Order: sequence, then C-alpha cells, then structure tokens
Amino acid sequence: MSTHENTASASTGAAAAAQKAKAPGDPVGIAILGHGTVGREVLRLMEQHRDALEHRIGGPIEVRGVAVSDKEKHRGAVPEELLTDDAMTLVQREDIDLVVEVIGGIDYPRRLLLAALNAGKSVVTANKALVAAHADELAAAADAANVDLYFEAAVAAAIPVVGMLRRSLAGDQIESVSGIVNGTTNFILDAMDSTGASYDDMLKEAMDLGYAEADPTADVEGHDAASKAAILASLAFHTRVNYDDVHCEGISSITAEDIAAAKLAGQTIKLLAICERFRDEDGKEYVSARVHPTLISREHPLASVDKSYNAVFVEAEAAGRLMFYGNGAGGDPTASAVLGDIVGAARNKVHGGRAPGENTYANLPVADFGRVPTRYHIDMEVVDRVGVLAELSTFFAQRGISLKTVRQEELNGHARLILVTHTAREEDLASCVEDLKTSESVRAVKSVLRLYSEENSQAES
Amino acid sequence: MSTHENTASASTGAAAAAQKAKAPGDPVGIAILGHGTVGREVLRLMEQHRDALEHRIGGPIEVRGVAVSDKEKHRGAVPEELLTDDAMTLVQREDIDLVVEVIGGIDYPRRLLLAALNAGKSVVTANKALVAAHADELAAAADAANVDLYFEAAVAAAIPVVGMLRRSLAGDQIESVSGIVNGTTNFILDAMDSTGASYDDMLKEAMDLGYAEADPTADVEGHDAASKAAILASLAFHTRVNYDDVHCEGISSITAEDIAAAKLAGQTIKLLAICERFRDEDGKEYVSARVHPTLISREHPLASVDKSYNAVFVEAEAAGRLMFYGNGAGGDPTASAVLGDIVGAARNKVHGGRAPGENTYANLPVADFGRVPTRYHIDMEVVDRVGVLAELSTFFAQRGISLKTVRQEELNGHARLILVTHTAREEDLASCVEDLKTSESVRAVKSVLRLYSEENSQAES
Repeated sequence: MSTHENTASASTGAAAAAQKAKAPGDPVGIAILGHGTVGREVLRLMEQHRDALEHRIGGPIEVRGVAVSDKEKHRGAVPEELLTDDAMTLVQREDIDLVVEVIGGIDYPRRLLLAALNAGKSVVTANKALVAAHADELAAAADAANVDLYFEAAVAAAIPVVGMLRRSLAGDQIESVSGIVNGTTNFILDAMDSTGASYDDMLKEAMDLGYAEADPTADVEGHDAASKAAILASLAFHTRVNYDDVHCEGISSITAEDIAAAKLAGQTIKLLAICERFRDEDGKEYVSARVHPTLISREHPLASVDKSYNAVFVEAEAAGRLMFYGNGAGGDPTASAVLGDIVGAARNKVHGGRAPGENTYANLPVADFGRVPTRYHIDMEVVDRVGVLAELSTFFAQRGISLKTVRQEELNGHARLILVTHTAREEDLASCVEDLKTSESVRAVKSVLRLYSEENSQAES
Repeated sequence: MSTHENTASASTGAAAAAQKAKAPGDPVGIAILGHGTVGREVLRLMEQHRDALEHRIGGPIEVRGVAVSDKEKHRGAVPEELLTDDAMTLVQREDIDLVVEVIGGIDYPRRLLLAALNAGKSVVTANKALVAAHADELAAAADAANVDLYFEAAVAAAIPVVGMLRRSLAGDQIESVSGIVNGTTNFILDAMDSTGASYDDMLKEAMDLGYAEADPTADVEGHDAASKAAILASLAFHTRVNYDDVHCEGISSITAEDIAAAKLAGQTIKLLAICERFRDEDGKEYVSARVHPTLISREHPLASVDKSYNAVFVEAEAAGRLMFYGNGAGGDPTASAVLGDIVGAARNKVHGGRAPGENTYANLPVADFGRVPTRYHIDMEVVDRVGVLAELSTFFAQRGISLKTVRQEELNGHARLILVTHTAREEDLASCVEDLKTSESVRAVKSVLRLYSEENSQAES
C-alpha cells in the first residue's frame, strides 16, 4: 500500500491573498501553446464570441502569442505577429497573464507550465496525462505564485466534472465516482454489445470511423482512463492519487462470448474508472482508484451511455446519486471546456480572487488494489459429477467470501458453472480464482469479470 | 412580445473591485434563516464536516444565528444563544458575513435578503420563487454592495445546473436547455407510463408516498417548473427572463389514453421546461421559455429519467449535448447544494474575489409564446369518407405548415387520424387546431400534444 506521506507539499487551501486585479480596461493577455484541433477551435471561438466573452469576464482579453513547433505549418492560419516557435520565452513574457496549454505530452508542457506559473501567469490546460502525473508540483507552483491552475478539459472534455467536484459538491462528502471516461473503448464495447461482433472487428471499425487511433494502446489498455481516474479521485477525496496508484486493465481480452453472457444476465460490459472511499477491516478509511472492464446492470444509468459518449456517476452523502453525460472528447467539446476555464481564470485576473485549487488536506491512504472491495462474476466449465459445487464452494468459504448467485447448466458431457460473489477483498477473490484453476474439477475458467456494485461503497452500508 | 428594456438595471459583469478578504483566522460569520427540513440538514452537515469545510474554504466558519418564526418550536434543536425570531436584525448584524435563506415564500425573504445585501452580506438562497421573481433586484443589490448572490439549490437541488451554466459553459454559446425540473410531476407521469393508470390515481399515489403536497397545484400545473425555467433561461441566454415570461401548462389534463398512444409510437410524455434561442422569420434572434407536457422519443436521454428524479439537457455550440441527472428535491440534496454555495461564498470572504453573478448583457428579446417554433401531434376522430385528408391538410398548407407523418386508421364507422407536423409557429399551429375543430369532417380532436424536437433549436439547423 502506498500511503502518501506528502503532507508537506499538500496544499492546505489556507488563505493566500487574492490575486491583484488588473487596472480596469487593461486586457488580459493570453498565450496559446499548441495549434492542433483544440487550439484552432479555441482561437476560432474566442474570435467569434469576443464580445460575449468580454461581458462574461468583465473585461477584454487579447491573444498575444500562439506557440507551435513548426511555424511554417501554421503560417496563414495564425496572424504572423502572434506566431512563435519559442514557447518558453512566450510563457514568461511581461504582457502575458494567462497561458493555455493544448499541446499534449508530459515533459515539455510540464517545463513550460512550471515556468509560466513561476512567472505569475495563470494556467489553463487540457492535458490529462500531465495533470495525472504532476498535479502536485503544478499546484504547488500555482499556490506559491498565487495564481490559478484550471484543467476542466483534462477529464471528459465538455462534461464539467472538475468544476462539479471542486465547487458544486464542495460542501458534501463524496463516496464514489464511477465513470465512462474513454470514448474509444465505449464505442467498441457498445458496438460489440449491439452487433455481437468480436473485439478485433469493432476495434477495426472504430479505427475506420476515426474513433480509435492508429496505435490504440493508450485507449484500449485503459491508460487514458487511468489518468482521468487519478484526477477524479484526487478531486473527490481531497487526497493526492497519482497515475501509478491506479490499478488498470483494458478491454482487449473481452470476447463476444463475454458480452453475450452479460446480455443474457441483463447486464452489459463497460470500461469503468471507479474511485471509492471505503473502510477496511482494520477500521481505517482508504481511497482507491481503478480502471477495468465491469459488468453493470442494464438498469443502471451508466449502462445506457452509448457510442463514444462519456458519463460520470457520483454518489455523495447528501446529494445522493448524480450523473453527468456528454461528449468526452473531440476538438469542439474540449475547446468548450478550455474556454470555460479561460473565462474563469481571466475573471480572476480582472476582479482579483482565486479559484479553488488542489486541496489534498484529507490525505487519506490510497489502498493497494488487493485490499479494495470488489465482486466477481466467474464463468467456468466444470466436470459433471456430484459434489463438485460443494468442493468449489469451499475455496470461497475458507476465505469468508459468500456467493450471491450460483447457476449451473448441463453442457454435453460437462457442466457450466457461473458464480457471482458478494463483495470481498480483491486479493482474496483473486486467490480463489487461482485455487479454482488448480482444481481437478475445473476444466476451464472461461471468464472472470468484476461486477459494478453500489454495495462496495459506504453510501449503501 | 415583451422585449425587456432593462439595460439600465442589467448587470454588465463589468469589473467591480474584489471583495476585501477577511483577516486570516477570523471566522466567516453565518446566519441561517429558517430551520425546516433543509435548514436542519444544513446545520447538521456543517457541524459534522466542520474540519473538512474549513479546509475547503481556507478558513473557519461559524454559525452565529438561526432565525425562526416561533422560537418555542425549535428550542433544544438549536443552541439557545443562536436562536432568534428577529431575522431582520440578524441579517444586518456586524458579526454576520453570509446569510443563508431557506425559508421559502417571496415577500418576506425578499425584504430580508435585500437588507442583508445592502448591509454588505453575501447571500445563499434555495428559493426558486424568489429568484425567478426578483433576481434582477437582488443582483443589483449584490453588485452595489460588491458581494455574492448564490442560488444553486433553487433549480434541481443537488444537480449543479446553475454552476454549470454560469461557469463551466461560460465560454460556450448555449442553444437550448430542456429539463425535467419537477419531481412530483415526473413521478406521476412515470407511474402512469409504467402502470397505465389514470392521472387521478397516480396523483393520489404520489400524495400517499409523500411526493406530492396536499395542495399539489404549484407542481401539477407547472408553476414550480416555470420558476426554474425562468432561472435557467436567464442564465443560459444572459437575458433576464421572468416568471411571467414563461408559458406554462401543467399535466392535469394528460390521460391514460395519451400515455398509451405515446407508448405505441415509441414515445413517452414528460413535463419539460424548454428554454431556447431561435431566429424568427424576421431574422432576429429571440429567446423563449415554456413549460408543457411534451411527447419525447424513448431514445432520448430525458425519456429514461424515472421516478422523482430530475435532469437537465443542454445543447451548446461547442460542447454539444450534455445531460445532468440527479435528485431535484428533498432536504439532503437541497442541503448539499446550499453547502456548496456556502463554501463558495465563504471562500470569497476569506480570499477576496467574487463569483460570477447575474449577467444579462445579451438582453435578447423574449418571444411571446405564439412566435415560438413548436411541433404538434394531433389525434382526431374524423368522418370516414373520400377527400377528408385532402380537406384537412389544406388548413396546414394554407399556413405553410408541413406534415411530417400522417396515420389513418379505420374505426367502426369513422376514422382515426393522427397528424404530426414539422416545426412551425405556435400561433399558426394553434389556429390550425381551431380550424380543425370547426370542420364538419372532424368528429373530435382527442388530444393535442407538443413534440420535443431538436429541430426547434439552431443547433441542428
């Protein structure tokens, strides 16, 4: 278990003086780093809605530089006097108040944004990988300089989960956050569910339609979702959860048979990022974040999220169940989130004040995956003779795991046995499956899937 | 048409100086007005999460007074030294920084909150009727005193629609907001849909289960939803839309037959608050807000919102389609929203700065209902003879209204004719229905329902 001992660097949210407001009428100077799909759309919308944005901010804004790696490629599309390939100089320039990062990657934008923050610029970034890996360092720099660090677009693009967790639910206690936060994998799983086709065929379809990249690894293996899980858990539990703390499994081993079996049982399979607060047998409170394919009842609001849509489901002590649904990726939705952040950060430059930032005061221990409460759905071929069920049940009973449902079907010459457990420790469940595999009564463990269950969270207990 | 000419009083969002931050460590003094279901829960949660709230705010808060109308009734539940029946004195007291209003009603809380704002206190209110009727006056007082006016709980309780429209989508252009914003009517319509029962029976059930009040008028006739529609439209379009601007029809005339017919057509009936931006034939841009029972496809995310849940569906230019779902009423969810606002307002007292407030710079004309684009679903009994359809179609053609679908069924001796129109002006559609009623070919117009259609909004056109 990695209990973070980072109290020293954790922002306490303690009072820092408000940012000094700019002189009235003095435009907020903006630097845009990157001119890809999102950067272009941000620039276009800023130009198109110039008057509206000025009203909403309470003062004018002005784009004063656009940094790209190759000026030749963007010449014509960006006014010549704005174009630069020297991002490091741009972010520290006197006339820049606000730096907007839409480049991607980790190391290079990290250096740029730290330089910007250290120079007293507020920062808006859409970079989930960077935030998941280095939020603490960036937040510390923002705190030290008394400026803002916004990253709404880093999770689920236009779905305002960051603002919701930071502000709207700031008076509540969040018990769990479960989300479909990767559009590519949701497209593939939804297509498998509705057509019955194989993973490989639907991955190919996603590629053909532009929903999956040429190298789809980051999406299909869950790495992208894991970055978002780290960010969501950090915000929800006021505890720093890093990318490396997130247990991560992708969807590439999900078969058409898994989907068909789920369907028969009134369920579907979604790749969920699950962030939970739970109390362990030792009585201590832990948080955890994980990403894995998950069986979920078709009755659950998350189950009906189709195509490449994203959704985030929250359970909070007082608010109860909330869900937020929308476009989780794409140039326009990402630009919408970036622009919302620009308005917020620019408002604070105009009016003074600071947005709520990283706040890891709770500093709860982040549980190793083995300790996390999960539920298993196990599909096996077993030999067809008396006493098999009793023998296999013993593996579970020995570890104090109770079975919720047991279904046995005759097949030709052997039997199919489907076990659904109640909630237990992940490591105990995993050990049971190892035991099952070694049993001579088990011909094959066909599939092991975790079940989504509100039984996991404290909200229900 | 009521084009508001309220530019003078409209807040422009122009820079006001930041609120002065309190001295470090000096608690934010809070007055709670009201100690009913919500007030009690707010107090309980503030006590239970005292440490967490202090961390999130960045400084301590202290409840310094609870105003009730009858002290005897609350003695014991509230510390004696906090209890007062003189709310007017409390809200102006030197040691109060923030006034939280959870009384309800209009005139009395209006006087209290204006006094509080004029005395330089920030205000958090859960009072939709008050905000829908007097947001402009309250916002002007908050602007003049340079303090905050928060009202997240006034619309859909714990679903953070106010924050989402004010902040998260602040960089986007909102085309439409459509919501199920009244839990009572959604419970009744959902129960009618799933059981086939009558309106009266399901209203009685809602009363028995505590989902409807003894006098359900405000809910079932749509008045509650209309207040929320006014607030949503004002926020979405940066234009003051008042309660009186909202066209409002309730659900009491919806029959089991209407629901059954909707079901057959793959639809259901929801009471929707619909706020839209549209361009009229005159080329001018208008906004509108209305509440009425609406036929909606079962495929639409709003159709699956069951029981007493609320949901708000937003279409924005860049963000695309977003939906927010959750508990729209009840003590706990309302308290969650109130507490989120308390954290925000207290943060600004601690750190300085001001939240985005009323901002009606766009000041678009609010269209009379007759001008609004709608679609009709008309169910009639007509005489069964040649030429009837041609005759009745003429009523529509004369007004330039095209029919999307026409379905004719033989009944014994006469015919049933179901017409679904494309989008047209409400007043033209209504005139057509009047014409149909006078035609000798029409035996009875059985039902006229408006259809939810994304065809109405500019997003699709």
